[in-house]
Amino acid sequence: MKKMVILCVLVMCFAFAAAAEEIESRDLTGRSDDGLLLFKSEDGKFQFMLDGRINLIAAMYSGNENPMSNGIEVRRGRLGFKPVWGDWSAQFDIDFTGVEAEIKDMWIGYGGFKNMMITLGNHKGQFSVEEVTSSRFITFIERAIPNAFAPDRRIGLSVTKWGKNWRAFAGLFGEEAVNADETDTNEALNYNLRLSFLPLLKDNAFIHIGGAFGHSQPNATDEGTVRFRARSETHVEDTRFLTTGKIKKVASWDQYGLELAASFGPVLLQGEYMSVKVNRLEDEIDAKFSGYYAFASWMVTGEKRPYSIEEGEPAGRIYPKKKSLGAFELAARISNLNLNHAESEIMGGEGNNITLAANWYPYPNLKFAVNYVMVNNDEYATADGDYPGNDDFNVFQFGFYYSF
Amino acid sequence: MKKMVILCVLVMCFAFAAAAEEIESRDLTGRSDDGLLLFKSEDGKFQFMLDGRINLIAAMYSGNENPMSNGIEVRRGRLGFKPVWGDWSAQFDIDFTGVEAEIKDMWIGYGGFKNMMITLGNHKGQFSVEEVTSSRFITFIERAIPNAFAPDRRIGLSVTKWGKNWRAFAGLFGEEAVNADETDTNEALNYNLRLSFLPLLKDNAFIHIGGAFGHSQPNATDEGTVRFRARSETHVEDTRFLTTGKIKKVASWDQYGLELAASFGPVLLQGEYMSVKVNRLEDEIDAKFSGYYAFASWMVTGEKRPYSIEEGEPAGRIYPKKKSLGAFELAARISNLNLNHAESEIMGGEGNNITLAANWYPYPNLKFAVNYVMVNNDEYATADGDYPGNDDFNVFQFGFYYSF
Amino acid sequence: MKKMVILCVLVMCFAFAAAAEEIESRDLTGRSDDGLLLFKSEDGKFQFMLDGRINLIAAMYSGNENPMSNGIEVRRGRLGFKPVWGDWSAQFDIDFTGVEAEIKDMWIGYGGFKNMMITLGNHKGQFSVEEVTSSRFITFIERAIPNAFAPDRRIGLSVTKWGKNWRAFAGLFGEEAVNADETDTNEALNYNLRLSFLPLLKDNAFIHIGGAFGHSQPNATDEGTVRFRARSETHVEDTRFLTTGKIKKVASWDQYGLELAASFGPVLLQGEYMSVKVNRLEDEIDAKFSGYYAFASWMVTGEKRPYSIEEGEPAGRIYPKKKSLGAFELAARISNLNLNHAESEIMGGEGNNITLAANWYPYPNLKFAVNYVMVNNDEYATADGDYPGNDDFNVFQFGFYYSF
Repeated sequence: MKKMVILCVLVMCFAFAAAAEEIESRDLTGRSDDGLLLFKSEDGKFQFMLDGRINLIAAMYSGNENPMSNGIEVRRGRLGFKPVWGDWSAQFDIDFTGVEAEIKDMWIGYGGFKNMMITLGNHKGQFSVEEVTSSRFITFIERAIPNAFAPDRRIGLSVTKWGKNWRAFAGLFGEEAVNADETDTNEALNYNLRLSFLPLLKDNAFIHIGGAFGHSQPNATDEGTVRFRARSETHVEDTRFLTTGKIKKVASWDQYGLELAASFGPVLLQGEYMSVKVNRLEDEIDAKFSGYYAFASWMVTGEKRPYSIEEGEPAGRIYPKKKSLGAFELAARISNLNLNHAESEIMGGEGNNITLAANWYPYPNLKFAVNYVMVNNDEYATADGDYPGNDDFNVFQFGFYYSF
Repeated sequence: MKKMVILCVLVMCFAFAAAAEEIESRDLTGRSDDGLLLFKSEDGKFQFMLDGRINLIAAMYSGNENPMSNGIEVRRGRLGFKPVWGDWSAQFDIDFTGVEAEIKDMWIGYGGFKNMMITLGNHKGQFSVEEVTSSRFITFIERAIPNAFAPDRRIGLSVTKWGKNWRAFAGLFGEEAVNADETDTNEALNYNLRLSFLPLLKDNAFIHIGGAFGHSQPNATDEGTVRFRARSETHVEDTRFLTTGKIKKVASWDQYGLELAASFGPVLLQGEYMSVKVNRLEDEIDAKFSGYYAFASWMVTGEKRPYSIEEGEPAGRIYPKKKSLGAFELAARISNLNLNHAESEIMGGEGNNITLAANWYPYPNLKFAVNYVMVNNDEYATADGDYPGNDDFNVFQFGFYYSF
Repeated sequence: MKKMVILCVLVMCFAFAAAAEEIESRDLTGRSDDGLLLFKSEDGKFQFMLDGRINLIAAMYSGNENPMSNGIEVRRGRLGFKPVWGDWSAQFDIDFTGVEAEIKDMWIGYGGFKNMMITLGNHKGQFSVEEVTSSRFITFIERAIPNAFAPDRRIGLSVTKWGKNWRAFAGLFGEEAVNADETDTNEALNYNLRLSFLPLLKDNAFIHIGGAFGHSQPNATDEGTVRFRARSETHVEDTRFLTTGKIKKVASWDQYGLELAASFGPVLLQGEYMSVKVNRLEDEIDAKFSGYYAFASWMVTGEKRPYSIEEGEPAGRIYPKKKSLGAFELAARISNLNLNHAESEIMGGEGNNITLAANWYPYPNLKFAVNYVMVNNDEYATADGDYPGNDDFNVFQFGFYYSF
């Protein structure tokens, strides 16, 4: 009940803050921007963008002891609409790849205050810069294993404010839009903050320092649960060897994240450290888990890396310097996720992965990616006891990305 | 078989009636009409409208004896296309909020005869003016409990004809587009009529008097069933305390509805009475149920209420007089649904609800709504025996509506 | 693993073959082409087409011994996007009629080489000209029973090359995009070839001679299976009387198809013969099945039949000569599917159907169809033992097709 009051008050603030200016109807001009479809009024106050994505992946496993299925998959088949009218904007995104059509971003935003965006609806909390980065722009085929700590999209209200070289995000979130698993953590209440500073932000270089904090509570009832788990940076094989299983008697959990990213011309360095503390009820001992990753990427063909201060992400389309060749990128990543915590007797497994990657962008809206992932799992990485642990294997995977 | 022949004959009439005129291709101009996206040829004969809706709701329950979950929900996430070419038009609407994408309006219409529309495909039968009113335009967050009697969209054929101050609708319907529950009443054959008269219809005032009749048969087989049920004007908590359960040995059922609506400037008064008679097989006694609601609404900021004679609904976008403030509305509703019928020994429960509402329209395509619903259920309102009856509770709910 | 390497090599070839030319952003002009919505740049290099389809069917059964349900159905409710930018094109199609939204065409194509298209993603293998023909353009309400042998859309890579009077297609395919049934044949690896020659191809006449070969393997594991089955050219009643059941111990299967189509003015003649040989493991005897159909169609109102050398299909919109009347077509088809093979002791049943059809096209994007199907099933047509065989029945069905 207290939660509801807080949310309603915030929403009311949002509502009355929105002093609608006088805008009327406009003629729109269609435009195909490097494969995008955009409709825009002459003064730019009305826009309508279509956002479609096709992402195919293929994966092949070797060295595995547990059975794994090589295969091909439509990883993302997403359709979205992004209207803008005056100070207002909205997003309506659906993904069609699962057994059910899934609501992704579905929110409305008010941008009538300077350098500020208020967002209401289903959207991402902001914990981890790699999670915040759109799947269109991530460097590797899959996000790194510590992504296990990043929350999914939830229905909530958030405020983002930014300046010339800083950005702050605060959000309050409730349930997931689709309650696929009622017993899961999707009923949690969650709030989180994310701050980023840019000591350097030039046309062809930037340094991003960020930090995030999140606090979550399981839904009301006496015995809350939470679970952290990760696939081994591959999605065709669905097994999540690293998993805490459902931790019981959970009062709440706190998350801490540190982000570093820097780019100088065609080079991008990025790393994160994340930890989570699970506060437990009664005599249960609090549990702690952590993870990190670091990667380096080099645009061999010399393209610079975009950075968006509004979105707080070192991401955007790559525009090949030589249009006839496209752009070419090489990258390497190490990652760690440690779900073992001896004191609380939760041994969910630890993984250490190394990834080598090559990307080719023949056109700003196309990407071909090849990744080689070397997975090193410890003896507790048993998918909650379903499989023998200590399964070290390699993944050769191919990804194809297209967005219109 | 007889049904099929009737349908085919009607469809053939529809087909041969459609004397296609000579229209060719046209250039279209994009236009954003207060947040809508519309493409239109200069002569207006070709149009293409995109219809998107995001509807979020939050609900908090108090005073309840049975367990109820406060929560947030994406109530509607709908995407539609509305093409018009010459005398023809069509609608293609999908809702993405459930566990499956659900077909809503999916029909084609022929409007080549004066003041007439012939519609073939999945669309609503017209029983109850509140049901007919688009979810974009209803005054309260949820429709009133007697909506239990209103039929869902079904595949069918209908003819609508209207004059300056009257409108008539006749439809013949078969199955629902999605047969989620094969044992439910979705296989029924249904026909219905709806008539409305407007003794007063001016720019800023109208009086609507309407009546509707519907006749339905369960699917063939020996033992047909039907069920009437309603949520307590809230959707987050899914329990339908008021329900007849599946009534067996049903030959057919007849529905009667009376509609009154009147608006004078910023005031709107609306009420309906509905009743249903279930005709039963063998020695079973026929069952009778009824319901009603009445509401008053006042646009505090003085906006008039739109009325559409073509659609037969007192509804449309509210255009705020003061654009910087938006429009503000206050409303109150009483409603009753009585699913008790002692003679036939079907005691589905009776509910009496009172709702207070405040709506704010910062922009013609945005609405923030707050409702306070006082639910008064009788001892038989047990959700078919699942819960103790006599649970009187209050709902505080918040709704946000956006359409593009 | 070998499969994966082949696929990756092919994909790489595709990638590096694509020498992107220099194209930039363009203004687009909206255009409604006989009910279509198309956005196009002046030079035609950028295009964006919306492809929506509504297909309703109604069916009535008579003479059947097994129970069959008359009914109405939304057979197809499909939404697609077809962007073209320079040498690249893509398709993004979703069908919403089932219990889940289903990915249909979802691919990207490169057309930078003369008279050639390279396609990567979810698309159809090309076996059977009737299968290749879009559901918007097929002559009868349902494809003929030998369609049991045509493969579904799968994720794969294909190359199509055509000349003035010939066309060649080669494709390599893996899994289906949606793995609804993991135990089914959807994990198979498949490659197929299709060749077509046109000894005659004029504006108002053509002769198409085609042949196709396909080779498929069930997924890895020791005991592969495959199943061939067909509904009796009706979709409302879902029973597939003709079915081999899951054939076990399958090493691979080979498919052979022969296609003939010829049109002279308003007349279209078309026929196909298909056979499949299932190569089995251990001592099991190889199984052989076959099927054929032939039809004749006559546009009573005199319209000619389109043929697309690029698509390799005798299909396209019918533009009525007299716009006020529309176009009218009469057609008849015989079809046979023989899933009996005594030697291997697989007796899946044999069916012989005769169909009479009448189609009316009031507008190029609208079609009303009536079909009368006389089904003659043998004693083994038992839906894998679920029903008594020898059920000969008639189907009267009605179809309505709309595309925008």
